[in-house]
Amino acid sequence: MGNVFGQLFRITTWGESHGGGVGVVVDGCPPRIPLTEADLQPDLDRRRPGQSKITTPRKETDTVQILSGTFEGQTLGTPISLWVKNEDFRPEAYSEMATKFRPSHADYTYQTKYGIRAWPGGGRSSARETIGRVAAGAIAKKILRARWGVEVLAAVTQVKDLRAPLDVESVQTEQIESNIIRCPDAAMAERMIELIEQVRSEGDSVGGIVTGIARGVPVGWGSPVFDRLEADLAKAMLSLPATKGFDIGSGFDAIQYTGTQHNDAFRNVDGRVHTTTNRSGGVQGGISNGETIYFRVAFKPVATVMHEQDTVDAALQNTTLKGRGRHDPCVLPRAVPMVEAMTALVLIDHALRHEAQCRAT
Amino acid sequence: MGNVFGQLFRITTWGESHGGGVGVVVDGCPPRIPLTEADLQPDLDRRRPGQSKITTPRKETDTVQILSGTFEGQTLGTPISLWVKNEDFRPEAYSEMATKFRPSHADYTYQTKYGIRAWPGGGRSSARETIGRVAAGAIAKKILRARWGVEVLAAVTQVKDLRAPLDVESVQTEQIESNIIRCPDAAMAERMIELIEQVRSEGDSVGGIVTGIARGVPVGWGSPVFDRLEADLAKAMLSLPATKGFDIGSGFDAIQYTGTQHNDAFRNVDGRVHTTTNRSGGVQGGISNGETIYFRVAFKPVATVMHEQDTVDAALQNTTLKGRGRHDPCVLPRAVPMVEAMTALVLIDHALRHEAQCRAT
Amino acid sequence: MGNVFGQLFRITTWGESHGGGVGVVVDGCPPRIPLTEADLQPDLDRRRPGQSKITTPRKETDTVQILSGTFEGQTLGTPISLWVKNEDFRPEAYSEMATKFRPSHADYTYQTKYGIRAWPGGGRSSARETIGRVAAGAIAKKILRARWGVEVLAAVTQVKDLRAPLDVESVQTEQIESNIIRCPDAAMAERMIELIEQVRSEGDSVGGIVTGIARGVPVGWGSPVFDRLEADLAKAMLSLPATKGFDIGSGFDAIQYTGTQHNDAFRNVDGRVHTTTNRSGGVQGGISNGETIYFRVAFKPVATVMHEQDTVDAALQNTTLKGRGRHDPCVLPRAVPMVEAMTALVLIDHALRHEAQCRAT
Amino acid sequence: MGNVFGQLFRITTWGESHGGGVGVVVDGCPPRIPLTEADLQPDLDRRRPGQSKITTPRKETDTVQILSGTFEGQTLGTPISLWVKNEDFRPEAYSEMATKFRPSHADYTYQTKYGIRAWPGGGRSSARETIGRVAAGAIAKKILRARWGVEVLAAVTQVKDLRAPLDVESVQTEQIESNIIRCPDAAMAERMIELIEQVRSEGDSVGGIVTGIARGVPVGWGSPVFDRLEADLAKAMLSLPATKGFDIGSGFDAIQYTGTQHNDAFRNVDGRVHTTTNRSGGVQGGISNGETIYFRVAFKPVATVMHEQDTVDAALQNTTLKGRGRHDPCVLPRAVPMVEAMTALVLIDHALRHEAQCRAT
Repeated sequence: MGNVFGQLFRITTWGESHGGGVGVVVDGCPPRIPLTEADLQPDLDRRRPGQSKITTPRKETDTVQILSGTFEGQTLGTPISLWVKNEDFRPEAYSEMATKFRPSHADYTYQTKYGIRAWPGGGRSSARETIGRVAAGAIAKKILRARWGVEVLAAVTQVKDLRAPLDVESVQTEQIESNIIRCPDAAMAERMIELIEQVRSEGDSVGGIVTGIARGVPVGWGSPVFDRLEADLAKAMLSLPATKGFDIGSGFDAIQYTGTQHNDAFRNVDGRVHTTTNRSGGVQGGISNGETIYFRVAFKPVATVMHEQDTVDAALQNTTLKGRGRHDPCVLPRAVPMVEAMTALVLIDHALRHEAQCRAT
Repeated sequence: MGNVFGQLFRITTWGESHGGGVGVVVDGCPPRIPLTEADLQPDLDRRRPGQSKITTPRKETDTVQILSGTFEGQTLGTPISLWVKNEDFRPEAYSEMATKFRPSHADYTYQTKYGIRAWPGGGRSSARETIGRVAAGAIAKKILRARWGVEVLAAVTQVKDLRAPLDVESVQTEQIESNIIRCPDAAMAERMIELIEQVRSEGDSVGGIVTGIARGVPVGWGSPVFDRLEADLAKAMLSLPATKGFDIGSGFDAIQYTGTQHNDAFRNVDGRVHTTTNRSGGVQGGISNGETIYFRVAFKPVATVMHEQDTVDAALQNTTLKGRGRHDPCVLPRAVPMVEAMTALVLIDHALRHEAQCRAT
Repeated sequence: MGNVFGQLFRITTWGESHGGGVGVVVDGCPPRIPLTEADLQPDLDRRRPGQSKITTPRKETDTVQILSGTFEGQTLGTPISLWVKNEDFRPEAYSEMATKFRPSHADYTYQTKYGIRAWPGGGRSSARETIGRVAAGAIAKKILRARWGVEVLAAVTQVKDLRAPLDVESVQTEQIESNIIRCPDAAMAERMIELIEQVRSEGDSVGGIVTGIARGVPVGWGSPVFDRLEADLAKAMLSLPATKGFDIGSGFDAIQYTGTQHNDAFRNVDGRVHTTTNRSGGVQGGISNGETIYFRVAFKPVATVMHEQDTVDAALQNTTLKGRGRHDPCVLPRAVPMVEAMTALVLIDHALRHEAQCRAT
Repeated sequence: MGNVFGQLFRITTWGESHGGGVGVVVDGCPPRIPLTEADLQPDLDRRRPGQSKITTPRKETDTVQILSGTFEGQTLGTPISLWVKNEDFRPEAYSEMATKFRPSHADYTYQTKYGIRAWPGGGRSSARETIGRVAAGAIAKKILRARWGVEVLAAVTQVKDLRAPLDVESVQTEQIESNIIRCPDAAMAERMIELIEQVRSEGDSVGGIVTGIARGVPVGWGSPVFDRLEADLAKAMLSLPATKGFDIGSGFDAIQYTGTQHNDAFRNVDGRVHTTTNRSGGVQGGISNGETIYFRVAFKPVATVMHEQDTVDAALQNTTLKGRGRHDPCVLPRAVPMVEAMTALVLIDHALRHEAQCRAT
């Protein structure tokens, strides 16, 4: 259980970091959507390790194959099965992990829960699991854009104490993709990259913030009680590895304001209702209000560091463990496509739910 | 859709702020749990409006009735149907709401989505909906405590810029309940109450933070991918009205640290594995690690204020609206039992899922 | 678990035969459907005990109340909570049931599973549970008729060895409702009623067949794998008390034919595709083909008889038990609205699923 | 949607008859179950076309690969991804299917619903889809046997008008597997095989009945309302291709009896409660009663026949179509492992649900 996301556009991911590969089955995709591997590979390449000097050097091409669900380049309405082979087998690099639990990783909790674990590379808790999400999210992004004109994007806006400005209304993918940290502010991007290189040279790691954005979402997606749009976004984001927090619109800063200051006034501008501010972050009462949706996701520093740390072994005896081999000083640039994917998966699910309940009348 | 929470301990809430009442059906409750209305009423009383001078004066006793699912004071394993009548009907107090959309409320989005709404009192988007959650949560809390020794509690730790210290390991319900703001630090509580009274006198409102805590959760609840414990907690919290953010453990502050600084070292202390720090917040890789679970929930200031504000009417024409009548300057003390309830509902669901998958071997 | 039916038009029933009542919450109903209690009561009256000399004399009016989900006579798109009070409390009539398990009832299995049971009147396993289904089904029938022109009906077509002819294309509700057994063939209805009166006089019971019909279902509802229309209908029917079998179209009789004889040939008749025969029963490959859907449901004879029977008691010792008090010689006429309700619930769920996946392109 | 089966032991099948293959993802499997491909292949071989002279000659080895979810020969508790490549590509053999709808197949309904279809070999509606079910069912059977001593089996008991006797208490797999029709009565098996060979020589097909059996199921699996064991079995069976009917225990024959005759008396025999007859088929009130579960599944004759038949083409014009190439005169022997698989999948899901709700107390 727990490997399924979504209700109407439902994905099931599978796979360990080592073994036959990782993949996803997408159930509920509308039929007659043009779809080939070429629609999926770009986001997988953005997620891939080894794409720049500031990410982990694990070498895999992460080439995706569509095993089912399309015919002559179009979706069939049947399950789309996507598969990416595992290539970079180096279990010997992980042999110490067989008997020692890495601090702030899932090793100890996983082993205790299941009584077994695929220790090479983190098994199911490896970030490779997100390959399936990113691939499925690419499908969702494509449909959202084609059918509803919805644009989903994300950007790195903070690395440790380096914060970049962001205009959620105007930022473009090209700006974000113009540097390897995926921060749209070129000057700050450079400082962030420098910081990460320094941290890497120290065998350490840093975290930061990815901001997610959805523009053009029509009024009415979401639901007023448990499945509020922000609730499903929060779950989606906190289900990504290494995340520690989520806030939407004014978020934790909402606390600074009084109600009078914080409220978003409605105005009819040229026949369309808008809010003069957007502290709501595009969602009111759990339902999209037509304004840009934006939210922040906090990522902790990567837990694997090249320093010796206290831990326990499989016999629960005290010991120490030092990370060795590949080292990912900052997950943030690779997290950008993950945040986009999860955003798109939440939105398309609510889009289809809205069609089902409210369009049929 | 969207009125169901949980998979194995599954609740469905129903009801508008005005009409026959509000309620909940709990499906999946284990049998033979002693249960009467007396187990549920105390939390409903903590959630109730009108309980103190700093909350909304809506006058309702919120008396709960168990309509099904118990026999001779014990649960049957069948659906438990709980019902609280609506009493305080004053639709005339809301008549302006019939034609004008309150800023930063759900009125506009709800009306646009469904093409209809129960405008008196906010309808389904009213905080009265949380009655069903709090009642169901009281059942969950009781079972968690009785069967697994898990203690769930919550406290107000920030009101606007007033922050209270909190020791998540030692704080007791009695401390929290010793004042009307539900802040365990007596001195800060007094200042918070003063601030809220001042804000109320100005016809305004404030937000803040509720910290949720679960102590005694065994190692192994949760799931490593989508249904991570923190993901389900995030969804649960962001599904509460007026919430804008969630973080767990070190949360957004995790960004201050490098990986080496941030990691929680494992140590065997007297035969039990512990972490020497708890930046993980009791959850690693989505699964509980035996440490105390704690997290923060950001609440925005209540949207209803006694000032005139810009908005649009049902014909989407510009107009103004001034809140009148009852006024809730701060939802935080009443949010405390809501946070507890949602925490307990997440935990019991994962407890039962753990039993199903991992205990049967 | 197990008290929820449907995915998009999702109902949760609750309630025991004795206690605060029985009810249902309908989640996912489209908004702006005119709905009052008057839409629901007629089917509840058809389901009610005591409506004729050939059913159980339990005396309850089964008056339904809408507690939520409507406003000014229209659905809101929020959960519709329906409640029917229990009135006819006579636990003393059931006192022997507290300690003895009735043969071919759920008493023994229920007690063993849950370790507790509400023994008066069968508790959750009472046919009173179907009140919630029939009420929810009445909503579904109304929407199906209004939006898609789909007509759902059912009729008694066999009582013990008395079989009535049925033309599924032309039979009308008026014919079915013209007699108390709900068999559209007047002559056979008379013989069936005589047989039931005879069986009643002997303190015994009989079963038979209810045939369900859905006319006007458009091509395309259903799904090709697990959620075939016939699979969901089979589950729906076998979830009704006292059912033992289901078949659709040619059903078990399909075995008499060779493939060449059995296949339904397609013909274009005046621009619309039809099949010249309808052995498929309106469903091919799990998806409706535009022909009339029809199926049979086998009901066993009611288990409560007025004769002494061998059984065991709560201490699992051999004993005997004789039914006393009310006696229902034949559940079939009351099962007719139940079959209609479950049929409508299956169809509307698939209608909404079709809107979600296939109409949005 | 509609490609998922089960709640706690949840399978998602994928794949078309032509394309990258077919497969299944099993989510919720308990950890530490020994599992390799060798556990799955035997049932796939029993399901495979071309295994005998009385089945379709499609030539595929149907070799299964475990892509994820196991480590060193044991299950991890993570999703188990199983894949079988498609090998026997002969789209040219199906070219007429591109433009003509085969009678009593899913071609017409599928095309109308989705507006597209993978016409070679039936696409998603091909019986190849059941490969995933059979593989997942093999896992379920293994766990049921190992943990609870439950034995699941099935047998062909009728081909057209040839009926074989069956003792559900004593029949053994060896008897069933001793002949190619999988009928435990050797004499009748021979007659059945003769009949099928004759039918094949005439280019025609026949249907019949597969009886499913589960022995050793403990008292208490199942649920009293919608998710009755017999309801979930009915859905499972009617979700198999070519099925038209299901009945359990006395089934449609229950109608022959009065209640007094039909009821199963309870008796304590040597300290264990049994029923003296088993007309209930091992399930009472939706919950297993400890007796052998048995039920019948009606399969229609295979729709593909070698005769010219009336149909319509893609432009909905009248035409004729004659089956050519491979011809499966009788699906029954290959349906035996499918019935077993679906039975096992229903039972294990209810077993885990029982653990979750009723064992934790």
